[in-house]
Order: sequence, then structure tokens, then C-alpha cells
Amino acid sequence: MKILRSIEEIESLRSEWQSRNLRIALVPTMGYLHAGHLSLVHIAKAQSDRVIVSIFVNPAQFGPNEDLDRYPRDFDRDERLCAEAGVDAVFYPAATDMYAADHSTWVLEDSLSQTLCGASRPGHFRGVTTVVLKLFNLSGCSVAVFGRKDAQQALIIRRMVRDLNVPVQVVFAPLVREPDGLALSSRNKYLSPAERQGALSISRGIFQAEERYRAGVREAAPLLAVVQESISAAGGKIDYVALMDQDTLRPLAVADRPALLAVAAFFGQTRLIDNVFLE
Amino acid sequence: MKILRSIEEIESLRSEWQSRNLRIALVPTMGYLHAGHLSLVHIAKAQSDRVIVSIFVNPAQFGPNEDLDRYPRDFDRDERLCAEAGVDAVFYPAATDMYAADHSTWVLEDSLSQTLCGASRPGHFRGVTTVVLKLFNLSGCSVAVFGRKDAQQALIIRRMVRDLNVPVQVVFAPLVREPDGLALSSRNKYLSPAERQGALSISRGIFQAEERYRAGVREAAPLLAVVQESISAAGGKIDYVALMDQDTLRPLAVADRPALLAVAAFFGQTRLIDNVFLE
Repeated sequence: MKILRSIEEIESLRSEWQSRNLRIALVPTMGYLHAGHLSLVHIAKAQSDRVIVSIFVNPAQFGPNEDLDRYPRDFDRDERLCAEAGVDAVFYPAATDMYAADHSTWVLEDSLSQTLCGASRPGHFRGVTTVVLKLFNLSGCSVAVFGRKDAQQALIIRRMVRDLNVPVQVVFAPLVREPDGLALSSRNKYLSPAERQGALSISRGIFQAEERYRAGVREAAPLLAVVQESISAAGGKIDYVALMDQDTLRPLAVADRPALLAVAAFFGQTRLIDNVFLE
Repeated sequence: MKILRSIEEIESLRSEWQSRNLRIALVPTMGYLHAGHLSLVHIAKAQSDRVIVSIFVNPAQFGPNEDLDRYPRDFDRDERLCAEAGVDAVFYPAATDMYAADHSTWVLEDSLSQTLCGASRPGHFRGVTTVVLKLFNLSGCSVAVFGRKDAQQALIIRRMVRDLNVPVQVVFAPLVREPDGLALSSRNKYLSPAERQGALSISRGIFQAEERYRAGVREAAPLLAVVQESISAAGGKIDYVALMDQDTLRPLAVADRPALLAVAAFFGQTRLIDNVFLE
């Protein structure tokens, strides 16, 4: 497995692979890998000849009061996990190589990004779309795999790819959970045992909402209420619990088309997100 | 020569050429081709295996009170000129195919775009960078040729390519002039004979400034004054006459590094631009 630390190294590998007409898949990550990331790698392997995992804690997608500095990092462990999963190359650039001091070009999705995490985290998705397009260009990938845990991100990337005619197939991969239901996230590391226990109320609420949907409930109010009540009862602070049209990310009063039920809530200082696609 | 009118057609041709490892060059234009455009084609041919000329009057780069509707168009003539110049494919899409009704993703360069034409034409360069990135992606080009007549545009595209790691080599081609000095532009068609005569004051002023520069003058004031006086004496209305750092497009008081002397002025209702690189 190759470790690529510079722009020149990944450009050179890309050129070599492209000249041999190899199909390249990219799995963009911020590292501190868990089973969710590895599930993306397995999907990527099945759809390509070569898999690149990027590990980059992207400063541009963190707000000034967010957790950029303390975001968990363990490159040695990430490297080992990638090698075991059969990854062909890990791209692990420095922030100063990804963003020149006078960097001035941004990719801005200005519709789907306005709501949910985009409303709570101004500038976040501008950072995401910009770095993802950079990673697409650097890797020369034909396919890229995104987890549904970051559902809004995946939908925004799909929109960007359509709008800018990016020659990359975007694959959405299932959300992966702990056995007790908690959605896998590198940020789960921040949780105290009591907070982690409380955080289970998120997935519990989501499962109940999904059950209601399967039983035929389509009105937003009862679908959202069960999630809100579950989280509040467990002492969580809700950022949003929302039912959205999957295409437009506009609120739905009734889930009469493919919908996304999305949640963000704090337990202690830790902001967690979770969701379910109702379709 | 192939005429590609749909996204599917250009994607299919791109895939075929890329699978054969052919080097593709793109010359993006708004059509109504003149000798300036054709000089770009010749440069593109010399640097590639296949040349695509795009002809697209991009609505996104016109302001609400600009000349989108009356911008000159003559596709049959353009097609013939391209065929004669040895172009391999012309991409001639409909605006509705380039921009979905819910298009929401933009490429925004927010430093070099703030001045000169960017100050006079808000949103113009956002439209340019967005469509150019789309055309790069659709064409699969490895090289793209831009004329120095649109100097700010060329510098912004070069910045975008650097910032977003776009795998395209950007080539700047010399500005082409009429025998009497007028910079070639599709918009010259708008000029009455008297306006066209007055418009010669732009290039005349620029040549005098360049002469002063060659003679050793480096202060901005005398370099700019000769251009301003030439245009004003001919009855032109100056939008800007400016001396800028080529890298940052910030104003220079002294041309002590690679500089751009750039002009925009109205003759009648027609806005013309011209420039010289002082280096």
C-alpha cells in the first residue's frame, strides 16, 4: 500500500493509473477510521480497480468555535486498518499543501446547504464541497463512496457532481451502527459513559419513527415527535429534528415522497448526527 | 468534424478519446468567432491530439442589464470556420442542458474577481468560473487555451485551476488586433463607424503606455495618464484604467513586478476591454 503525502505523489500515481485505464475509487475521510469507513472501502473495492483513501482533517469545513484542534487523529492505526482492508493508496496531505496561503476559490452549493447542519454550521458545506472536488481532481477517481450517516453531505455532493458535470459516480453507502444502535462516528470518542448512554436515545427515537412510517404514518408531526421526546427525555439538547424532501431538502409536512428524517443533538459538548431515509 | 449538441454526446466522445489516451484540448468560446478565437485553435492543435471548441453564450456570466439577448450569434459560420481550422469537435449545448432548473452549485473565486471587470459586472466571474469548470469536466481536456484579451478571466481561471487542483494545463494566448490596433472582440460588431474610430484611442493609449514602460517609466501615474487622456480625448467613457500586480490583481503604484495595464471603456453603448502585460 502506498502512502502519498504530497500533491506531486498523488498526481503522479493518478497519471500512471489513468494511462493504464484503471478505474479508481476514492473514499474521502477525516481519519480515525471505524467500521463505517471500512464498509465504504469494501464497497469501493467492489466497484473499481484501485482504491484510494484520503485522510485529511479539512480546516475549511470547521467553524471557528468547533473541534478542529481536538478532532481525534491516529494515523498509524488508520494506515494499518487501510492495509488490512486492501486499500491501494492512502493520501495524507498537509493542510498547507491543500490550501495555498492565498487560496481564493470555493465551490458553493447554495440550496441544499442552507438547512439542517448548514444552518447550524455556517461555511461547513462550502469547505466540504471545495475539498471533495479537490480530492476528486487529485485522485482522478471515477467513483467515490460516501456514507449515509452524513446524509446531507452525500446529497450535496451528488448535487455538486450533477451541477458541475463532474465525471465521478457518487455511491451512497448504508449507515453503520454499534450493536446497541449508536451511529458510528469518530466523535463518539468524546462521549463520557453517561453521555454515550444518553446518546442511544437518538437511534432509539429514529427506530421508533421508522416503525411508525412502516406502519403507514406519513404526517411529519408524529414522526418527529417520537424522536424529539426520546432525546429530550434522555437529557439531550436538540439542534434539529426534521423531515425533509430528499431532492430539495425542504421540510415536508407529509412524507409523501422520498424523505429524510434527520437529527442533530448535543450530549454534553458533543454534537451527534443521525438519520433515516424514509422511502 | 463532429457537432455535439447534448451532454450525452460530449461525455460519450470524451470517454472514447480518454480510453485511447488521446490528449484533448479545449477552446471555450461564446461563438461569433474571429481571428482571435482561431489563433487559440491553432495553439490548441499544436498541444494536443484532439481539439474541442465549445460555443456557448453562457447566461450565468451576463448581468440583468447586459447584452445576453443581443450577443451576436452565427452558428453556421462558426461551424465552417472551425472545420476549416481543423477542429475535431464543436460542443454547442442548449442553456437548459447546461443549467438544470434547480442548479445550485457555483465556483466562486473571491479575490482576483473583486476588481476591474469584477467590480463593474457583479456575478460575471462566478458565471465564468462555473461554466469553465463544467466545460473542463465535460470535455475531459488536459489543456485549455484562453486569450489574453480577457486577461482578468485568464488569471482567474489559472487561479481556479491551482486552487481546485484541476488537472488541466491553462495556456494564455496572445491578444490579436485588427491592423489598425483595435483588439478583436465579437462585440466590435456593435460599433458604429464613428464609435469604432473613437475606440482606436484605447489601443493607441495602450501602445503609448507600453512605449513609456519600455523606455523605463515604472510609476503608475504617467503610464495610466496617457491611456486616460487618449480615451477621453476621443469621447470614450472610461470604466477603469488600472495598473495591477499580475498575481494578486492589486493596484500597483510602481510597475516593479509583472504587471497588467487593463482598460475598460464605453464607446456609445458598447463596453470594450483591452490590456497589455508589462513584464
